[in-house]
Amino acid sequence: MDLRNKPRIGVLGSSSCSPHFMQLAAEVGRRIGTAGAILVCGGRGGVMEAAARGAKEAGGITIGILPGESESEANPYIDIPIVTGIGQARNVTNVLTSQAVIAVAGAYGTLSEIALARVAGIPVIGLETWSPTDPEGRIAPGITIATSPEEAVRLALAAIRRA
Amino acid sequence: MDLRNKPRIGVLGSSSCSPHFMQLAAEVGRRIGTAGAILVCGGRGGVMEAAARGAKEAGGITIGILPGESESEANPYIDIPIVTGIGQARNVTNVLTSQAVIAVAGAYGTLSEIALARVAGIPVIGLETWSPTDPEGRIAPGITIATSPEEAVRLALAAIRRA
Amino acid sequence: MDLRNKPRIGVLGSSSCSPHFMQLAAEVGRRIGTAGAILVCGGRGGVMEAAARGAKEAGGITIGILPGESESEANPYIDIPIVTGIGQARNVTNVLTSQAVIAVAGAYGTLSEIALARVAGIPVIGLETWSPTDPEGRIAPGITIATSPEEAVRLALAAIRRA
Amino acid sequence: MDLRNKPRIGVLGSSSCSPHFMQLAAEVGRRIGTAGAILVCGGRGGVMEAAARGAKEAGGITIGILPGESESEANPYIDIPIVTGIGQARNVTNVLTSQAVIAVAGAYGTLSEIALARVAGIPVIGLETWSPTDPEGRIAPGITIATSPEEAVRLALAAIRRA
Repeated sequence: MDLRNKPRIGVLGSSSCSPHFMQLAAEVGRRIGTAGAILVCGGRGGVMEAAARGAKEAGGITIGILPGESESEANPYIDIPIVTGIGQARNVTNVLTSQAVIAVAGAYGTLSEIALARVAGIPVIGLETWSPTDPEGRIAPGITIATSPEEAVRLALAAIRRA
Repeated sequence: MDLRNKPRIGVLGSSSCSPHFMQLAAEVGRRIGTAGAILVCGGRGGVMEAAARGAKEAGGITIGILPGESESEANPYIDIPIVTGIGQARNVTNVLTSQAVIAVAGAYGTLSEIALARVAGIPVIGLETWSPTDPEGRIAPGITIATSPEEAVRLALAAIRRA
Repeated sequence: MDLRNKPRIGVLGSSSCSPHFMQLAAEVGRRIGTAGAILVCGGRGGVMEAAARGAKEAGGITIGILPGESESEANPYIDIPIVTGIGQARNVTNVLTSQAVIAVAGAYGTLSEIALARVAGIPVIGLETWSPTDPEGRIAPGITIATSPEEAVRLALAAIRRA
Repeated sequence: MDLRNKPRIGVLGSSSCSPHFMQLAAEVGRRIGTAGAILVCGGRGGVMEAAARGAKEAGGITIGILPGESESEANPYIDIPIVTGIGQARNVTNVLTSQAVIAVAGAYGTLSEIALARVAGIPVIGLETWSPTDPEGRIAPGITIATSPEEAVRLALAAIRRA
């Protein structure tokens, strides 16, 4: 099994969210799994769990970059728990381990990951997520907006191929 | 000298910025120093250096939370360099060490710090900075907008007193 | 493939070492792979590369917890590079992600990982590695000494089963 | 007050220890304070608190590099709490921020800091602390043994001057 050459796509989102966003995240996960890509996420509940569940339903592989000191905080759909022990600072590891990220909805933790991904030059695809306006008035600079889970995964894969 | 009970105010901003933003940051720093507060920042150039310079001109004390493994990357106005060795993950330490933060302009690194501060419940004052719209359409939720350096520092001190 | 329930064994060791220690590490890796366990390591050269190579030769799966901001620093035998971006602080993540660790030879970085594993209560198996004497004169407290790669992996698996 | 050019000496040790080691640590702290140096420590109890108390009694300045997300875990003798939020990974920040470190007794957390300091090339002075024997049989390579608090602080200051 050639894991090293599979694309790694991060899914960013909140640990609690509405059923609508859970469905979006699950569909993003399914399409990542179907594409043969590896799903990277923060390993916990909400969007992270829905996306991981979707990926597993499609036969994919999932990595959970956990904040705490125990793998017990991983959701049941995580194949490989990475127990960082560094709290919210693991948001950095989460995005750096991904070759592109898809943000689904999200609270401020998700916004921090969107921003950290852009600092590192990692492609960000946004799906019904934050829209940050910068000090010069530019709206969501460097973030590509998707209108469906299918489009989000397609854009992420295209961005990885271009890199 | 009772350092422990002095308010600690973080100043967030980019390592490179226009003269206008440098002036804003220096004035923020001066008012922090004048107020007898401790300035916390990322320790490098641009907004961080201008703010630290302002604080020192007003007789204040400055802490620089550095990303790398050497204090040599600190700007000359840092009194106490904290050499974290954890790269961008130091953004977490930067905001957690502050009792309130003032964001001045900034690129995506600054936005990550604004977001990480809100995750931790730390008051954020914005001065000509990012304006993030959340997935529900709320504009800059939990961020207090200031229109001048004087107002920004006054709001930060008031938020610390309330906490 | 049930990755979640495979044991995860960390191999600790220096990025440069003698051919003798490389052979020991490769044999440790082979036995981890043969046992169907997942090998966790720091992802770089020396002992880490030899162990990962051994694991791959035996059909195993390897995770590399990298210190820097790019997966390019991973050795060629790493299946899943975790790009932490936190420098030496990744030693914490390396041991927390492992359910038991085997230290092979090593310089001070390895000693830091042995110690961090013991802080976290993670079983440590030592193979021709550091022997720290504590302030009360106890030699290598809490470290189990192995005399061969075969014994090291057997002890690690037994420790994981007991946990 | 020229804080930047004051030497910064780290004191490493356990959060719980015997009265004998508390007395040693307090005396180390006093001598650091008397010398006009800044004391850096992990900010918590035991050796860290005793050393910080000693430094404050001598009019010194103390920095506490805390593991958690709140300054409330700092002992009462810390002037400047650095709230890292990164757990045990803060051991890296603790040693990198120090220009030399003195280890007093200690459990495995202290040994991890001794080792991390040596990885970074930071001088380590040992006072009734761990004695690690490396794989080649060398005893405590690169660690300077002191026999009293006075000698420990003198050796730390000399090492900083040489750097």
